[in-house]
Amino acid sequence: MSEEIPYKIYLSEKEIPTNWYNIRADMKNKPAPLLNPGTLQPLTFEELTPIFCEELVKQELDNDTPWIPIPEEVRNFYKMYRPSPLVRAYCLEKALGTPAKIYYKFEGNNTSGSHKLNSAIAQAYYAKKQGLKGVTTETGAGQWGTALSMACAYFGLDCKVYMVKVSYEQKPFRREVMRTYGASVTPSPSMTTEIGRKINAEYPGTSGSLGCAISEAVEAALNLDGYRYELGSVLNQVLLHQTIIGLETKAALDKYNIVPDTIIGCAGGGSNLGGLVSPFLGEKIRGEKDYQIIAVEPASCPSLTRGVFAYDFCDTGHVCPLAKMYTLGSEFIPSANHAGGLRYHGMTPILSQAFHDGFMEARSVEQTQVFEAATQFARVEGILPAPESSHAIRVAIDEALKCKETGEAKTIVFGLTGTGYFDLKAYAAYNDGNMNDYIPTDEDLQASINKIPHFPGNLA
Amino acid sequence: MSEEIPYKIYLSEKEIPTNWYNIRADMKNKPAPLLNPGTLQPLTFEELTPIFCEELVKQELDNDTPWIPIPEEVRNFYKMYRPSPLVRAYCLEKALGTPAKIYYKFEGNNTSGSHKLNSAIAQAYYAKKQGLKGVTTETGAGQWGTALSMACAYFGLDCKVYMVKVSYEQKPFRREVMRTYGASVTPSPSMTTEIGRKINAEYPGTSGSLGCAISEAVEAALNLDGYRYELGSVLNQVLLHQTIIGLETKAALDKYNIVPDTIIGCAGGGSNLGGLVSPFLGEKIRGEKDYQIIAVEPASCPSLTRGVFAYDFCDTGHVCPLAKMYTLGSEFIPSANHAGGLRYHGMTPILSQAFHDGFMEARSVEQTQVFEAATQFARVEGILPAPESSHAIRVAIDEALKCKETGEAKTIVFGLTGTGYFDLKAYAAYNDGNMNDYIPTDEDLQASINKIPHFPGNLA
Repeated sequence: MSEEIPYKIYLSEKEIPTNWYNIRADMKNKPAPLLNPGTLQPLTFEELTPIFCEELVKQELDNDTPWIPIPEEVRNFYKMYRPSPLVRAYCLEKALGTPAKIYYKFEGNNTSGSHKLNSAIAQAYYAKKQGLKGVTTETGAGQWGTALSMACAYFGLDCKVYMVKVSYEQKPFRREVMRTYGASVTPSPSMTTEIGRKINAEYPGTSGSLGCAISEAVEAALNLDGYRYELGSVLNQVLLHQTIIGLETKAALDKYNIVPDTIIGCAGGGSNLGGLVSPFLGEKIRGEKDYQIIAVEPASCPSLTRGVFAYDFCDTGHVCPLAKMYTLGSEFIPSANHAGGLRYHGMTPILSQAFHDGFMEARSVEQTQVFEAATQFARVEGILPAPESSHAIRVAIDEALKCKETGEAKTIVFGLTGTGYFDLKAYAAYNDGNMNDYIPTDEDLQASINKIPHFPGNLA
Repeated sequence: MSEEIPYKIYLSEKEIPTNWYNIRADMKNKPAPLLNPGTLQPLTFEELTPIFCEELVKQELDNDTPWIPIPEEVRNFYKMYRPSPLVRAYCLEKALGTPAKIYYKFEGNNTSGSHKLNSAIAQAYYAKKQGLKGVTTETGAGQWGTALSMACAYFGLDCKVYMVKVSYEQKPFRREVMRTYGASVTPSPSMTTEIGRKINAEYPGTSGSLGCAISEAVEAALNLDGYRYELGSVLNQVLLHQTIIGLETKAALDKYNIVPDTIIGCAGGGSNLGGLVSPFLGEKIRGEKDYQIIAVEPASCPSLTRGVFAYDFCDTGHVCPLAKMYTLGSEFIPSANHAGGLRYHGMTPILSQAFHDGFMEARSVEQTQVFEAATQFARVEGILPAPESSHAIRVAIDEALKCKETGEAKTIVFGLTGTGYFDLKAYAAYNDGNMNDYIPTDEDLQASINKIPHFPGNLA
């Protein structure tokens, strides 16, 4: 083992980046704007501010400013759990017998258990600054809801979380963390909103969906005085905040003059992946450096590898704007997959555009292989990874094993987005040999893709 | 806020201590030796090595060597999750409006979720070095079993965990973490040992106890070729390994020329408290410095504040040696308390002696107050603390509020031993207003204390 590079590269607090990086400023082909589904025209500041905080709408629409200052209050909160470590996976390398050098940026060392807190604290800050009373949001598996609850507790904001009913019932501990941070958690569909009552009437006994929870959270924000809605992925503003991950990663690598060959991240809505790769992608787009950048998605929900690049709804309830992205169709229902955070039919427009332009590749992996990698990683590196993060681990191990064959000493960096402490039902299924792999058939995918709106210019 | 002292003081990996500190070498009154319950004579190396690894027995019996080298293999593992941060609780200070400066040493940033890993990896290492096949142990709430499973996975040792049946059933997720690390987990009492079968026959349907699980684990180790038993608290060897906590804390404080006034830790068996305070206690015993050192225990299990200093059994099953310690009697059954890690009838002999000699004080706190402090802490400092750790938070907040009254700017350091991610049933009870405080009556305590063995010299 090299004595020079420590197990964990920590930046000092003074080295926490002072600006987020807005990669759109460097993209030759900008991501397509969000459209008003009624008029099919780009959404304006005026149309968006009743839903989102003003400062966040500005960030959402800003395709030009490359560096956006991180407010001091947000940086102070970051100091409580950041900089996160960039870890040299010495023990994994040894176990694999690979000449590759493997690093991972670990975002799980905070109570939300994932990178979601990076954007939650920024969004809560702007809500507070605007003088709001509180915010609403939805949560599926619970990571985002937990992160926003923590952020709101810190700034003294009310936080109303609509939690997909099946998760509310099956994940009472996640719910309890949010309550401990003072959030109110409502199972969705609920009777507190018009759309919730409508869905409950149409589908009695339904266990809910993320799309429905989004619709309820948006409705609640619009109807409550002094509230706005906040979202944890997909949007440009979220990717912007998450660039803290990649900027810290790059600063830590630079400190030791390390240039990565391959950068790997798991991809659901794209917030973690976008945050991790943005600074590297920027250099690649500007033609300064070349990196292999790999998005890893579940074979059960393969938006980049098997989807189409088109305008589509962001939610299954069709209350949200249209976004141009790689999508499986907003009515695509992913088969059961334990990586709840990756079960999204689309992909953030920024990464969709970058993928379309050939700056990034994509792989899909099956669930059992993912848990095999997760277990191997946990036993030698100590950390029990989230199922989502383990998609990246799977491909990092695959790439390191290729190096073993070729003898190449590549430098591989992957994002370890979070911990698996609330995902132990999935680990139990794997440990018991009861895990199944679900891959949608071509017919199923085509049926869903056929339902994407066919307005002029779409799916040309 | 001071610009000079960062939120988190991290040592570099090179600054990880190279030796554990054996405080017994500096104690004028040594802790009394473990006794053979049959002969009432001090247990010898030969009597202990069939149960424990040889190197660990040497450490257990060594009252003279002040510094014991940390093997390189153990230090390498430490580098994966250590040095742990010493955090300046700026946000808690602000929320309390206190002039006090509050620091906490956070041991929860590893998958075992607590400080237990510090000793587990050392014990697994010595087992591996001795050429053993595996180890056995018991676990109650699950932290120790998880830590030992992780350590055994790293060194490729088999790990057999006897888990108190009620926890096995109520905490399936803890069990699953251990299985993921390759451990076999057996609910205790089981039918795999003589004592387990006996207890099952005598008490059909019993949900088990830590005492019974210890007895089964010891029996299993004695009957299996190439196995030894390992324990996560109380023993001198465990306190020795845990001094990594206090040594790092002291090094971090020294780096900024900070001298604490008050050092606070929660106390169950005493492994965390002993590890945190040893370097400071050593200076106090040697007359070099004065510190206020406070042990915090639950009012439901008040061994230091309401127990007696006497030789007693370490386990309810009475298969273990006699230890001289503050005890409530080995048959004391603590009322339901959500801090499972603090429900021990006794206190490690080292700290018992130090308390007896006036070098440490003790406080007992009630459960509802503890969760009130935990919630307050979580909302401003981000981290969701374990119920055990929250006992220390309670007293740290109390002391900081006293400073607010007196205007003193004391420096308070406390140990944050772990996270509460597997304790959310307890948080739910608190959030729902269903938490009760249980304080044993004088009569109950006296009845239990009266059962402590009355051999000559005891309870003089």
